[in-house]
Amino acid sequence: MKHSPRLAQLIEALRSLPGVGPKTAQRMAFHLLQDARPAARALSQALDGALASVTRCRRCRMLTEEELCSICAAPQRETSLLCAVESPADVVAIEQSGSYRGRYFVLMGHLSPLDGVGPEQLGIRELEAILEEGSVRELILATNPTVEGEATAHFLAELATRRGLHASRIAHGVPIGGELEYVDGGTLAHALAGRQTVV
Amino acid sequence: MKHSPRLAQLIEALRSLPGVGPKTAQRMAFHLLQDARPAARALSQALDGALASVTRCRRCRMLTEEELCSICAAPQRETSLLCAVESPADVVAIEQSGSYRGRYFVLMGHLSPLDGVGPEQLGIRELEAILEEGSVRELILATNPTVEGEATAHFLAELATRRGLHASRIAHGVPIGGELEYVDGGTLAHALAGRQTVV
Repeated sequence: MKHSPRLAQLIEALRSLPGVGPKTAQRMAFHLLQDARPAARALSQALDGALASVTRCRRCRMLTEEELCSICAAPQRETSLLCAVESPADVVAIEQSGSYRGRYFVLMGHLSPLDGVGPEQLGIRELEAILEEGSVRELILATNPTVEGEATAHFLAELATRRGLHASRIAHGVPIGGELEYVDGGTLAHALAGRQTVV
Repeated sequence: MKHSPRLAQLIEALRSLPGVGPKTAQRMAFHLLQDARPAARALSQALDGALASVTRCRRCRMLTEEELCSICAAPQRETSLLCAVESPADVVAIEQSGSYRGRYFVLMGHLSPLDGVGPEQLGIRELEAILEEGSVRELILATNPTVEGEATAHFLAELATRRGLHASRIAHGVPIGGELEYVDGGTLAHALAGRQTVV
């Protein structure tokens, strides 16, 4: 059965959301037009509002509405620590752990030459400018433990050590609360290779 | 970490989509603002367009942009069969099976007195008007096999039989391709109760 043109357009547009296939998009469209018209209107307005106002932090490239994001603007954050992550969601995740008081640099991706993503696209020039300022002592590499994430971490580590800064990589191993039995081989290999002496 | 106000608004608005929780909404918002701004703009426009144009078929209450939906407007559909379903998605599913040539009536819900959904909200008056026309011979009840769906089917069956029309309920049983071993007890009970003589 063919949907009417506007309905088909809405279903197609909803498919651009991550993790949404044709069936889910149809379900969403029907829900919005059938039971939730005020919510549909609110979503359209929220999209317009966010597109108009949300931009990137001038310093760390985090999504924000101000020139500087709330973390870069906070004077009490440690300026000697800089944590490089792939995406804004990673910043949110680390902040929620409550275990980090430094600042961030959001790469908005990872090195991927085949997709045309090189150092330029990751804002390496901006990162170098921050490192040149002289307050950063340690660059913490929190890119994802994928091939591209590792390559990006390696590239950034060289950038830091070339300037005499300390570069560190977050630990990869068995997650807390996880059971060894269910942990994949790659993670176990990392956990064994990264083992630490018990004092 | 607190999101900036517009970003928080967008995340909240995305949560109104069915099956989208806070984590998924955040992921969608970041994706739209980070990598997919044209898609975000398209989605906003598609929402506005659909809200402005998509309405309900005057006859069967299906979502459409015309006064009559494509099925009600098609002269080759059998007018003696009318299939009552709970939602537009059900119409799409039945149409995709390619096994039905009659028309539909979309209830847009099921009887649920506690939620204030009575016959009035399900468009029973419009349904009665169609039945009064005299061309419908059989009302097929394709509401969901839930308590409310069954109650709605029962209510509609009485409506039809009171007018001397034939009322039928779609069969419930073991799905084709399903294995008995993995089918739940309620479905098996239905499959046994609805068994048919093998000729």
